[in-house]
Amino acid sequence: MELTISQLAERIGAELIDEVGAGDLVIRAARPIEAAGANDVTFLTNDKHKASLGSSGAGAVIVGGRLDGCERPQLVVENVDSALIEALNLFAPELTPVVAGIDSSAQVADGVSIGEGVSIGPGVVVAKGVEVGEKSIIGSGCKIGENSTIGANCRLDSNVVIYHNCRLGNHVIVQANSTIGSTGFGYSFIEGSHRLIPHNGGVVIEDFVDIGANCCIDRAKFGDTVVGAGTKIDNLVQVGHNVVIGKCCLIASLVGVSGSCKLGDGVVLGGQVGLADNIELGSGVMVAAKSGVINDIEAGQKVAWTPAIERREAYRIINSVMRLPELAKELKKLGKRMNDLEAAEDGKN
Amino acid sequence: MELTISQLAERIGAELIDEVGAGDLVIRAARPIEAAGANDVTFLTNDKHKASLGSSGAGAVIVGGRLDGCERPQLVVENVDSALIEALNLFAPELTPVVAGIDSSAQVADGVSIGEGVSIGPGVVVAKGVEVGEKSIIGSGCKIGENSTIGANCRLDSNVVIYHNCRLGNHVIVQANSTIGSTGFGYSFIEGSHRLIPHNGGVVIEDFVDIGANCCIDRAKFGDTVVGAGTKIDNLVQVGHNVVIGKCCLIASLVGVSGSCKLGDGVVLGGQVGLADNIELGSGVMVAAKSGVINDIEAGQKVAWTPAIERREAYRIINSVMRLPELAKELKKLGKRMNDLEAAEDGKN
Amino acid sequence: MELTISQLAERIGAELIDEVGAGDLVIRAARPIEAAGANDVTFLTNDKHKASLGSSGAGAVIVGGRLDGCERPQLVVENVDSALIEALNLFAPELTPVVAGIDSSAQVADGVSIGEGVSIGPGVVVAKGVEVGEKSIIGSGCKIGENSTIGANCRLDSNVVIYHNCRLGNHVIVQANSTIGSTGFGYSFIEGSHRLIPHNGGVVIEDFVDIGANCCIDRAKFGDTVVGAGTKIDNLVQVGHNVVIGKCCLIASLVGVSGSCKLGDGVVLGGQVGLADNIELGSGVMVAAKSGVINDIEAGQKVAWTPAIERREAYRIINSVMRLPELAKELKKLGKRMNDLEAAEDGKN
Repeated sequence: MELTISQLAERIGAELIDEVGAGDLVIRAARPIEAAGANDVTFLTNDKHKASLGSSGAGAVIVGGRLDGCERPQLVVENVDSALIEALNLFAPELTPVVAGIDSSAQVADGVSIGEGVSIGPGVVVAKGVEVGEKSIIGSGCKIGENSTIGANCRLDSNVVIYHNCRLGNHVIVQANSTIGSTGFGYSFIEGSHRLIPHNGGVVIEDFVDIGANCCIDRAKFGDTVVGAGTKIDNLVQVGHNVVIGKCCLIASLVGVSGSCKLGDGVVLGGQVGLADNIELGSGVMVAAKSGVINDIEAGQKVAWTPAIERREAYRIINSVMRLPELAKELKKLGKRMNDLEAAEDGKN
Repeated sequence: MELTISQLAERIGAELIDEVGAGDLVIRAARPIEAAGANDVTFLTNDKHKASLGSSGAGAVIVGGRLDGCERPQLVVENVDSALIEALNLFAPELTPVVAGIDSSAQVADGVSIGEGVSIGPGVVVAKGVEVGEKSIIGSGCKIGENSTIGANCRLDSNVVIYHNCRLGNHVIVQANSTIGSTGFGYSFIEGSHRLIPHNGGVVIEDFVDIGANCCIDRAKFGDTVVGAGTKIDNLVQVGHNVVIGKCCLIASLVGVSGSCKLGDGVVLGGQVGLADNIELGSGVMVAAKSGVINDIEAGQKVAWTPAIERREAYRIINSVMRLPELAKELKKLGKRMNDLEAAEDGKN
Repeated sequence: MELTISQLAERIGAELIDEVGAGDLVIRAARPIEAAGANDVTFLTNDKHKASLGSSGAGAVIVGGRLDGCERPQLVVENVDSALIEALNLFAPELTPVVAGIDSSAQVADGVSIGEGVSIGPGVVVAKGVEVGEKSIIGSGCKIGENSTIGANCRLDSNVVIYHNCRLGNHVIVQANSTIGSTGFGYSFIEGSHRLIPHNGGVVIEDFVDIGANCCIDRAKFGDTVVGAGTKIDNLVQVGHNVVIGKCCLIASLVGVSGSCKLGDGVVLGGQVGLADNIELGSGVMVAAKSGVINDIEAGQKVAWTPAIERREAYRIINSVMRLPELAKELKKLGKRMNDLEAAEDGKN
């Protein structure tokens, strides 16, 4: 897509401030300040970067408020983040639109309910009792197990596996090679061997959830494993059986959420965080990357470290740890001084 | 499946104690105490939960010994864990039975040996020289490489990839999107580039091993990478080349077992544990979640932390670390008191 | 493959020192010292293992320099690592050669450019605008998205998913179930929901890169995520959007490289390492396994721990931490001695 600066301003609902009369300049991409060239629009999401704007090659800039002393054409918007998303969508690489219909190599069981405008790609296997809502796109190589339901406007990328009795809401995205509804890690040790506890439950993925590539969401032993509406999950994340995740959470890559954990709304888990079994995190809890959580955390708390504790306290402790060899030396010196004093004292008696 | 309480008792071999004459009540599921309703059987695996039984809505309860003062119908069994597994199997969601045979879209090389009752799903590719034992189920989209063997009663879920020269025993389960027999991470740095060391070995997965979703088990450079009988592996686990894992181990999610590690029998690795190359863990070793093991661990030890040390020692150290800022303050105070004393002493001299 | 010791020496360019006249002995494999039998050649890559050579059953040994007092036939080479790779290649299990051509079940879009000798396996889906260079092997079940290019002599193993607009160089290997070009984890929180930032960029994988199984390499928001020539990536690794990795790096299993990190050449990341967003690691940086890097690291540094610091400093600190309970005791004792001294002092006044 090519747009003139004026057209772009109109499309993203921006006020155009164009002191140099460059409104007809063609823009082909949105790029960060340091990478933008003459045919790119850049953006100022953070005032910290205002200084670098001067040396940017960008043809125009999206700003949250008019910048004085900036000769470049400015597209003034209320919310730069939102305008940037619109601009990026305008300049997205053009791809062939997905065609509705069922590829001839897909195997769709009899009686499956397929909504209007659904696309089912090559090699897809859809089992009995499945429902797929309108306009959903099932990528090549996906498998959808018996009685699972996929809502409307979903997108399953290639080779996603959904086991039986899973329910995905609307506008759910699952990226390639992810697995939903696998049997969880639950065994009883009986007479010398680990016997699997049957997982009779399912998985519920609510509306507007995004799940990254190569993730695993296990089905529940009883009831459902739940991922709440609007929650976003990065790549290579493990969500154990019977976990209940609230709405609008963010879960970064390589996180492990053990069985039966309960997360409130808006919880943020940094990369490689691990939660022990049965942990409850209140709404708004933020866990710093790599932390290991072994106790419940109250709503709104920010925690870090293993075992995860209040974040500032964790940093205070880590700072102390960093100084520990020094402390040990001080302690040793103090011991010597004590010896000297005691010896002096003894000498007097 | 629906069963009356009496029928359920008979099916799981329980003694029914039914003081209220509710034996004809219909049961449709087994659920935990807090979730169970009138048509559910619940279970008491831990006496801690006895108190909450009173307020449970469960229609009946599976117990390890008769409970006094419990009016609810009791199904008394010797082993509650085992009875629960039986009950869950009875109430498992009913799915269409897998049909034996080779799907028309599967590509099975000439001369492959396929046992009786085997099911080979859509899009499966089976290379030359493969053997599949009776009643095994090869899910859609699986690939089985040249000369690999799959025993009897195995289940490979969708999109599992088994490379060449791997040998799976009987009753092995591999969940979706897992990879077995990939080339390990072994390079020699020669004349400015990392050159791959060929991996001429294979992988041996013994009987009754379960492997979760999206796991990777690398083939050996020499000989075989081995996963011992009855070992259970969670999702997203990495097992490096030439690793030898004993029998009946439990390996939780996101664990990394580096090349050439040797694990005895019954080893338990918590989530996100990492083992350095060439580590030996004796039988029965338990490694707490998130620990990093850099030394051999003797049989029966329970270890924690990075670097992993004896568990109680680790907890003692972590407790000290938690108190470290306080210790630092005490040290500082002591220093001041020392200064005062020394000054007093100096004053005297 | 079977070779006599003399033939093997010739094939790997070794000088054969054969005092016992065993040059006609047949060799069928290369194995490590402790595992080698009469028909195996073993190797001495490290003088530490010289002692164990005496008790080895190996029929011959590859050495970097003539060993005195060793009766076994010696194959003397300049570089043992290199010779071992050659020997292992000679003795690699014989597999049916891959046949060039497009499997009848593959779906290749019109106008796709397929080089000479390319093999495209069963169930592969190749979208519009793709180019595949000569002699590349696209394994069964792979998907290649629109306008992506695969160089010459590449190997994509089964079920690899390459999204649109990704560019792989020559001699690139991607193992099974890996995902390249997935959308990264970038959201703006706008009016109560996480809105995805469109990822208009792509992925560039340079020549001679190896990527393990079940890895994820996210596409860039702007520009490209880049993996530099000769870099080797283990299994289950996450590379975030806009990451730029230099040449000849080694990245072990379960590592998470967060968005926009920049790695120089020859960087080594141990298993389960995590890098925070936007970190720069200079060339030659080595990060010990399980470390969490939250600051830029200068070229050539070796770091460890979370937060990652200079390695020797980290070990010094960890050693102090190990002794911490003891230090706490000493501090307590010192406090008591101080009390006594102060009391004595007070008594005098």
